[in-house]
Amino acid sequence: MDLSRIDSLDRLTNEFSKLPGVGKKTAARYAYYIVTSPKEQAEGFADAILEARRKIKFCSNCGNFSDADVCSICKNRSEQTICVVKEPKDVSAIERAHSYNGSYHVLHGTINPLANVAPKDIKIAELLQRVAKGQTKEVILATSPDIEGEATAMYIASLIKPYNIKVTRLAQGLATGTQLEFADEVTLTRALNDRREI
Amino acid sequence: MDLSRIDSLDRLTNEFSKLPGVGKKTAARYAYYIVTSPKEQAEGFADAILEARRKIKFCSNCGNFSDADVCSICKNRSEQTICVVKEPKDVSAIERAHSYNGSYHVLHGTINPLANVAPKDIKIAELLQRVAKGQTKEVILATSPDIEGEATAMYIASLIKPYNIKVTRLAQGLATGTQLEFADEVTLTRALNDRREI
Repeated sequence: MDLSRIDSLDRLTNEFSKLPGVGKKTAARYAYYIVTSPKEQAEGFADAILEARRKIKFCSNCGNFSDADVCSICKNRSEQTICVVKEPKDVSAIERAHSYNGSYHVLHGTINPLANVAPKDIKIAELLQRVAKGQTKEVILATSPDIEGEATAMYIASLIKPYNIKVTRLAQGLATGTQLEFADEVTLTRALNDRREI
Repeated sequence: MDLSRIDSLDRLTNEFSKLPGVGKKTAARYAYYIVTSPKEQAEGFADAILEARRKIKFCSNCGNFSDADVCSICKNRSEQTICVVKEPKDVSAIERAHSYNGSYHVLHGTINPLANVAPKDIKIAELLQRVAKGQTKEVILATSPDIEGEATAMYIASLIKPYNIKVTRLAQGLATGTQLEFADEVTLTRALNDRREI
């Protein structure tokens, strides 16, 4: 029998190990931190979890996180341009760039036959409903430039084309600040093909 | 104004970023996980934090984590051999090896002048009190073989010597499963000097 085991510590370690990318050792480190932190801080942590889980739901229009039925982006911006992303965190990423002023649509996944994610499993039907209202002039397909992201973008593009709406994809090329010598072949080919006059 | 900000999500992200080694991006990933997990799971997580923080204190004898005033190791094992470690997680590590049957003493730190940790800041006085009871025959100084660990061990050894008690240190040498060619010079020197007949 392991006398050093403490049930409540094991339980907390187990909860932490459920977080994405957290193994047993990291989880134990987090649990030790909680146990040795001031009481108010541990209580604040627990309360933050409960509050976030209770308050945050998905916007009924765009699918982004929201603490109201319709999120503040949908309330404040027009449907003229809809930027389609995979996950809520992609919305935050684009918002941080401060260069987009339209609304969003969160798919909550990308088509991935290997992981059994079919078109009906992500929020494509909801996007088509929004587009069918006739207010939208452009749909930006901002899924990542990987296999699933490209496939999803191509699939959605084929569904939206009949509505006679402009469908665009984010530009691909060299990332700002990178070294040319370290760019991979596909990125370099893209950057060359899409080169622009200055 | 950033319309994608949600106060309760920011608050949770901020709490996660207080964990050791967790930056803003990892914290956001953890927060997303909590917000999208089933309600019962988030509640279970919060409750595990509260329970662990409430129940776990330090053993009044050895300083290890405990859910009682005296931990189950101190209750069940003799004081004949005391293994001195830096932190509670070191107790778990040694217990996992299933090859030690004595009691422990957790210092809660090692002497480190650069970080302003003096001998009086760690639980050395408590160790001497235990040793002074006269039941202890051997003290194993199991602090890590790094600068602070070695210095702490040497310092404690000098204080315990007058009690006429055997003072030992964990063996140093090649770790099991490692490749000889990758061992550093200090480890190889130690392994050579402490070589044993077979």
